Amino acid sequence: MTFTHCSIVGLGLLGGSLAIDLRHHFPQMTLTGVARRRKTLEEAAALHSDGAPVFTHLSQEPGAVAGADLVILCTPVQTVMQQLADLAPCIAPGAVVTDVGSTKRMVMNAAATALPAEVFFVGGHPMAGSDRAGLLHARAGLYRGATWALCASAGAEAAAERLSGLVETIGARPLRIDADLHDRLVALTSHLPHVVACALAAQVLGDPQGELARAFIAGGFRDTTRIAAANTAMWRDICLTNRDNIVRELTGMIAALESWRDALRNGDVPHLDALLTRAHTLREDLNR
Amino acid sequence: MTFTHCSIVGLGLLGGSLAIDLRHHFPQMTLTGVARRRKTLEEAAALHSDGAPVFTHLSQEPGAVAGADLVILCTPVQTVMQQLADLAPCIAPGAVVTDVGSTKRMVMNAAATALPAEVFFVGGHPMAGSDRAGLLHARAGLYRGATWALCASAGAEAAAERLSGLVETIGARPLRIDADLHDRLVALTSHLPHVVACALAAQVLGDPQGELARAFIAGGFRDTTRIAAANTAMWRDICLTNRDNIVRELTGMIAALESWRDALRNGDVPHLDALLTRAHTLREDLNR
Repeated sequence: MTFTHCSIVGLGLLGGSLAIDLRHHFPQMTLTGVARRRKTLEEAAALHSDGAPVFTHLSQEPGAVAGADLVILCTPVQTVMQQLADLAPCIAPGAVVTDVGSTKRMVMNAAATALPAEVFFVGGHPMAGSDRAGLLHARAGLYRGATWALCASAGAEAAAERLSGLVETIGARPLRIDADLHDRLVALTSHLPHVVACALAAQVLGDPQGELARAFIAGGFRDTTRIAAANTAMWRDICLTNRDNIVRELTGMIAALESWRDALRNGDVPHLDALLTRAHTLREDLNR
Repeated sequence: MTFTHCSIVGLGLLGGSLAIDLRHHFPQMTLTGVARRRKTLEEAAALHSDGAPVFTHLSQEPGAVAGADLVILCTPVQTVMQQLADLAPCIAPGAVVTDVGSTKRMVMNAAATALPAEVFFVGGHPMAGSDRAGLLHARAGLYRGATWALCASAGAEAAAERLSGLVETIGARPLRIDADLHDRLVALTSHLPHVVACALAAQVLGDPQGELARAFIAGGFRDTTRIAAANTAMWRDICLTNRDNIVRELTGMIAALESWRDALRNGDVPHLDALLTRAHTLREDLNR
């Protein structure tokens, strides 16, 4: 059973790109956009797909989600948690509610507390994004080929199946997963790399010799630190809602760097070779 | 005064790409290629630029550098140090010798010991490369726009000026710099990021849940760890010839990650905001 009326709350890169894809694949769908800022709504009104406006309605009012059979929250994780409580009274019975936040445990808990039993929550997390935030960077096909994690809350199995179909239609790869495992895996593959890229960017570019050092910056450093330029509000929320997992991965990373430092300090060639070869082999394998 | 006969020793990505550019910009130049492996020489013989063979001569013998007024060593740093001693008796008086190695202090010291007074050594380091090594990846224009550090040894000022002109002709940006400062700056901008990318790649991809984690790997992780797939022999040499500087930068990085860990463990929002904002601002500035 497909959805007939979708409300997207939060019109940034993710919400905007999703709206464009939904309009393209479901031309008959009523599509309501909700955003806090008037300027965002003006940008959203200008959004077109296949020659038609992307949104059917645009509103600053949370009450605009009232008629929807699908509500998608596309705001940072801590805002999602607040919005679940604020929107709960407006959501139609039988509606499916999902989000696109980068951590899932705290959102699932907030949904269980805030939403009435006749509303079905499925936590969602598409592995897509960019270091360029905002509706102006929204584009068709952002989610194509991306893993889209779906965590069904108790009783929301059928809702998760419906969402799985929707996600597949726009070209993403739905992956049903438990929220605990999800948060552990993204700490490893996404949150740890982000913190590391931030620390590296700050150390190199903030160095007293930083200006002179720029002549020596090549593609390697740019690649390694690219994600440090991403939206800080989003990342603050991610960090604060996955603290335990990120702390554990950071402890592993610190130990690994200490091991490198020992190998270098001692001029331990076999150890250094082993460290370089292991990294090379594992990363090369990912290129295949 | 331009050079009339150039010997390139070591025909990998850097040596091969340099040969292609020299052939293009100096069609009259005698260009000798020296490599250890027969297969490499066969690949080098097949290399053409503007319809003509790139190399005038190819040889496995170090003695092939005898007639050159410019000898460019394009091998890993520790090999360069060995070759300086091996080639010294064959190099013509008055010749200029340079290299393209990623660290400069130890090479400069080795040259001072190995080369006779009538041969002029200028340490060189083009900030160009790729995670794809080998002659088969050599291409025209690899050095275009790249900073090319030049460290003149005592008495080699005129030689450095001549090299500076050569490097500019193929589109690179010569930068005269002291070897100590060079090694400190590349530890910061290149060697630290490399070690960090290796440690990160190994931790994530080597995790017991690594297979499942791959579904959650997106562009961010790929970018952040791309350089970990680079040539391990070259990086072993870089690490071993810049140990003190890399150890110092690693100590800074470990302290930075401990600071992030503290902020996360304590849920210290102002500290976390400050860390995220500083990284964002500095990295965003590099995009401009």
